[in-house]
Amino acid sequence: MADFDLMRQLHLKNDSKIVLLTLDGLGGLPVEPGGPTELEAARKPNLDRLASEGTLGQMVPIRPGITPGSGPAHLALFGYDPIHYDVGRGVLEATGIGMKVNKGDIAARGNFCTLDSNGLIVDRRAGRIPSDEAIPLVGRLSEIQIPGVEVDVQHVREYRFAIVMRGEDLEPELEDTDPQATGVEPLPVQAREKGSQRAADLVESWIKEARARLAGEIRANGLTLRGFSTDPALPQFPEIYGLKAVCIAVYPMYRGVSRLVGMEVKDFQGDSPMDEFRTAGEIWEEFDFFFIHIKKTDSMGEDGNYKGKVDVIETVDDALPSLLDLKPDVLCVTGDHSTPVRLKRHSWHPIPTLLWAPATGLPDTQMTFGERTCAQGGYGTFPTVDLMPRLMAHAERLEKYGA
Amino acid sequence: MADFDLMRQLHLKNDSKIVLLTLDGLGGLPVEPGGPTELEAARKPNLDRLASEGTLGQMVPIRPGITPGSGPAHLALFGYDPIHYDVGRGVLEATGIGMKVNKGDIAARGNFCTLDSNGLIVDRRAGRIPSDEAIPLVGRLSEIQIPGVEVDVQHVREYRFAIVMRGEDLEPELEDTDPQATGVEPLPVQAREKGSQRAADLVESWIKEARARLAGEIRANGLTLRGFSTDPALPQFPEIYGLKAVCIAVYPMYRGVSRLVGMEVKDFQGDSPMDEFRTAGEIWEEFDFFFIHIKKTDSMGEDGNYKGKVDVIETVDDALPSLLDLKPDVLCVTGDHSTPVRLKRHSWHPIPTLLWAPATGLPDTQMTFGERTCAQGGYGTFPTVDLMPRLMAHAERLEKYGA
Repeated sequence: MADFDLMRQLHLKNDSKIVLLTLDGLGGLPVEPGGPTELEAARKPNLDRLASEGTLGQMVPIRPGITPGSGPAHLALFGYDPIHYDVGRGVLEATGIGMKVNKGDIAARGNFCTLDSNGLIVDRRAGRIPSDEAIPLVGRLSEIQIPGVEVDVQHVREYRFAIVMRGEDLEPELEDTDPQATGVEPLPVQAREKGSQRAADLVESWIKEARARLAGEIRANGLTLRGFSTDPALPQFPEIYGLKAVCIAVYPMYRGVSRLVGMEVKDFQGDSPMDEFRTAGEIWEEFDFFFIHIKKTDSMGEDGNYKGKVDVIETVDDALPSLLDLKPDVLCVTGDHSTPVRLKRHSWHPIPTLLWAPATGLPDTQMTFGERTCAQGGYGTFPTVDLMPRLMAHAERLEKYGA
Repeated sequence: MADFDLMRQLHLKNDSKIVLLTLDGLGGLPVEPGGPTELEAARKPNLDRLASEGTLGQMVPIRPGITPGSGPAHLALFGYDPIHYDVGRGVLEATGIGMKVNKGDIAARGNFCTLDSNGLIVDRRAGRIPSDEAIPLVGRLSEIQIPGVEVDVQHVREYRFAIVMRGEDLEPELEDTDPQATGVEPLPVQAREKGSQRAADLVESWIKEARARLAGEIRANGLTLRGFSTDPALPQFPEIYGLKAVCIAVYPMYRGVSRLVGMEVKDFQGDSPMDEFRTAGEIWEEFDFFFIHIKKTDSMGEDGNYKGKVDVIETVDDALPSLLDLKPDVLCVTGDHSTPVRLKRHSWHPIPTLLWAPATGLPDTQMTFGERTCAQGGYGTFPTVDLMPRLMAHAERLEKYGA
């Protein structure tokens, strides 16, 4: 039976409300031996009360030991095994900055690079040129016209951009042009399958034009393209679970992944947890499932800012009563992955997870929300893809299996 | 590798005795915040002693969040992944009340329903007529003769009955006749595959006869049939594990599932835990594996009777010394699923599990048998299908894998 057939077969509709409150990169580590993690250090009376009333556990985002990127980590939260549902990197990059990628479009990630006078790559990231230097170059590339297709190019960050090509008969089975090495030329656009030859030719002519327009640059005088892909046509979240679902998130990446799985994505004023919770309240009656995303726990983790990450967690805790006032039937507070301040990057460590469902909760013996209490929690250690069925069960939205 | 190949390849024979003592619907929840579950509240010195000497864990019966019916839940206890081994609902219903379903027979579940004068369904359950009203009607249906096949009809409960049709060339690929709606007619018997046309015609003529014989009834003047299926030809438990296995259970459903997997099913006097343990003692030398089933924990859970469920657990505990006197090498005390008094129905919550094996036990730190101690137990949280290999291992009935 395919992954989602059980959910499709068993889901019920009722009036319950499920909130998945995701603190990006929530999991942490002690910065000194014997010390508390970021989550353990935070003063968070509301979260601790929920922990004492609810059930804790820790989630493995992809597979044990595997550190996820944001795209796969969020797919797992929504119940999609990211190893099976492989969303192309080009699509993730483009969707992540709010570009539309429709079925039949081709999306790719672009890097500016530095070429020497023989056309060989000397720096694969163009000296990591800053965004304000890259943005006008992207503007120049976006003026390129290729007959028969529409091309959209947008800046991502520093030396990175995304490109989406739209037209007839485009197949995305193309090899990367990034040779992943210096001292060699960028690779030509190779079609992996016969049907992709037209796309290969069109991308090649775009690259030729782009090279001409960058030739005068010192650092960003070349480019490479990677992760050619199209809309993965993912099974749609509302259909799988029978949930009217909304995404409340500030950053385009998370809005993009939510859109790919078929959630509605809500625009709102402000960017604080309080603003996000207020927005949930405004549309409370319209939806069954609320994915609320807090970015700054992850950003502070990547910046190595211990106090900053603790502060973000405390800000979420301060705002939490306004979310609880809405009386969700099921509230899960977790992360998509860990981003320990100590490592300054995403990690594979299991994600502390709090599941609170006053009517159907499984009690455990834990009294506070932290990595170590979660490791001892009532739901134990489990794969992130198993979260959604549990949220559905606690919302009493799943029928019995078999007689 | 298919599910059972490892077991077939590695199993050994010895003189050990394994007891799987299943308290149906054992898992519970606090009925008030901060209170004990049914199992935690029970006075059970014997089970607590076994818990302190043995290893605890909690089992996920089917998949996380999935609430099982009794059939799938028991298949999982015996090591059969119930998603893979999908036993038809008609077979389960019929086997459950002790009817024989052989390869080539067709079994189905039947409901009496109420039809209006246009033949449209006005009540899919015939007003839930009581058993004493339904039994004579089933008697009337069992007199129907259909040339070329033998038909057995038996009452299940209230408005429900089971039917088994036996004859040549019967294929069970038939659609349900229950439209799952009122204001419409029962559906005709549709063959899903060409080979099932003969069966469809025979069932249709039986239904026509049945309708004629029910026409004068007020409430039960019609019927629907569902879950057409035949003997699933499951791999056989004794062959997989090399165990001579016996079922000691009062209720037909559990005796039926045990028979489907090839266990012997023992008749005995009485219906108390003490009667079941006494029966185990009487046949102790004849078998290697004893599946002992206690029903009333589940019944009390479904009735919402907290004290009743606690009492059943205490009765089992009181009787336990007579089982321990037999000196089982491995004793597992668990449930097939949870039936919390608070929810009054089966649930998806993990099942508290106690594994006691004096010669090979893995010690943990838990001292009592309860949901929360099991969540902290030495075997952690694991799928129910993983139980049988552990019981085999603790009985020293599995060879080393590889050199």
